[in-house]
Amino acid sequence: MNREFIAEQFKVLQDHICKRLEEVDGKSVFIEDLWKRDEGGGGRTRIIKDGTILEKGGVAFSEVHGPVSEIMHKQLGLDGESFFATGVSIVLHPNSPFVPIIHMNVRYFEMNTGVYWFGGGIDLTPHYIKPNQAAWFHADLKNVCDSYNSTFYERFKSWADDYFYLPHRDETRGVGGIFFDHLTAEDCHLTKEQLLDFCLDLGRLFPETYEKQVLAGKDLEVKPDQLNWRNLRRGRYVEFNLVHDRGTKFGLLSGGRTESILMSLPKDASWEYGFTPEVDSPEAFTLNNLKKGIDWLNA
Amino acid sequence: MNREFIAEQFKVLQDHICKRLEEVDGKSVFIEDLWKRDEGGGGRTRIIKDGTILEKGGVAFSEVHGPVSEIMHKQLGLDGESFFATGVSIVLHPNSPFVPIIHMNVRYFEMNTGVYWFGGGIDLTPHYIKPNQAAWFHADLKNVCDSYNSTFYERFKSWADDYFYLPHRDETRGVGGIFFDHLTAEDCHLTKEQLLDFCLDLGRLFPETYEKQVLAGKDLEVKPDQLNWRNLRRGRYVEFNLVHDRGTKFGLLSGGRTESILMSLPKDASWEYGFTPEVDSPEAFTLNNLKKGIDWLNA
Repeated sequence: MNREFIAEQFKVLQDHICKRLEEVDGKSVFIEDLWKRDEGGGGRTRIIKDGTILEKGGVAFSEVHGPVSEIMHKQLGLDGESFFATGVSIVLHPNSPFVPIIHMNVRYFEMNTGVYWFGGGIDLTPHYIKPNQAAWFHADLKNVCDSYNSTFYERFKSWADDYFYLPHRDETRGVGGIFFDHLTAEDCHLTKEQLLDFCLDLGRLFPETYEKQVLAGKDLEVKPDQLNWRNLRRGRYVEFNLVHDRGTKFGLLSGGRTESILMSLPKDASWEYGFTPEVDSPEAFTLNNLKKGIDWLNA
Repeated sequence: MNREFIAEQFKVLQDHICKRLEEVDGKSVFIEDLWKRDEGGGGRTRIIKDGTILEKGGVAFSEVHGPVSEIMHKQLGLDGESFFATGVSIVLHPNSPFVPIIHMNVRYFEMNTGVYWFGGGIDLTPHYIKPNQAAWFHADLKNVCDSYNSTFYERFKSWADDYFYLPHRDETRGVGGIFFDHLTAEDCHLTKEQLLDFCLDLGRLFPETYEKQVLAGKDLEVKPDQLNWRNLRRGRYVEFNLVHDRGTKFGLLSGGRTESILMSLPKDASWEYGFTPEVDSPEAFTLNNLKKGIDWLNA
């Protein structure tokens, strides 16, 4: 299984996810923006906006390769002269505060030395946490994890709790999900083909598990204060992506394609000094549940 | 002149600026939020919002001291066992897209080794660049600079061009201003008292020079598209502060007081994928002038 095959599978995955998300939205379609990278490779960034469900979102495929720069060596720890990387990245910002923000990434890295690994993750960021909906999401992830390795879900759920976390707020980004990196076939007693299939299964799960979240929230009536709260939560999402997210930081600092990297940002976000929700409100309930280590499967 | 005296002068400066800005706004007043730092010192953050002119802004005084942590040593290059730092920081986000965003900071650092320095800067970020207004602003800054050292304006203007710059956008934040750091009395043939006076004069200039910008823009009629453009420009301000600004990054990573650090963020900001203004529009004129090295004095 060569790297071109993996990139091709990720393209097929991007096509599938875009088609399914257009069905879920029912109105808007993706616009494609093709780009080339001077040092080698390129991508197809697909953007959706002003939908019935999705206010702003992107599903990006990229396949980049070339020499390992100083900053890649230092910040990504890449050892070798040249690298190859391919993946699919998604962030969706819905209109309704009762539909969660969602993110997914699956990626494959290969060095000229022959070393390779897979990485990825899916996490859910509800503006309003509903424990039963978080439970559906985690059950879907566990189901895919369990069909490959019985240790995946617990390990990767805990990894997501640690990764999708804003230390300066002492808040998790949302109800977590799974996150993994530097995964090789040997690490997890699978073949390389199976590890790719794990990534592809997660990708195929993505629109299905998100559709459940959409259906549960899309028709709920929205008040102006709830839109304000949605925008404050989007502000936290911006903080995470610009201050902490490794991919974003690395991309911006190493001369990546800015618009593709920052497609993860919402249309509108807000900040208020010292905003504190009312005691016992759904907003306070959400804040109180932005914690690591919650067993959402049984919440 | 001891450090307590400098901190006291910065407090007086904060009082003066808040009083003058309340006069400029004509409606809203500052709310004070006092805080203590566990390791030593504290601050008084003052916030204004929902004004006639100012939608969201902060004027913060702080005086912090204590042991030099590992992260301070690494990221700020502080050599010594303990430090003392005091300063005033301001960011103002106006309602009108025709009134610029403005930022100011003056600060004093002292190490237990006896080494000390001053730093600071003022820069202007118009949503719509008007060369004559940029010229007033730069003339005011040059005037204060020239009364202390004839090399200050040119050096510090160029420093601001380099500092208030978003490499991932290849845009300056606005029309610049002045920026300086690690300045000692010997460096610039002044006494330490004169260097403090330079910082205080800049601080006293701040509300006066901003008032001119406010008066020039506050009564212009605003269309919805212009509010949209204002929010996109605010999005860039968020990107600069969260990705590049040294003070913000250091503060968030070293466990500073998050709400005081992020008082610099606007109420509402927006992002649009690949937004391009119409050719020959005022928005395109603004983008084309977000460049280093423009002689705004004679623009």
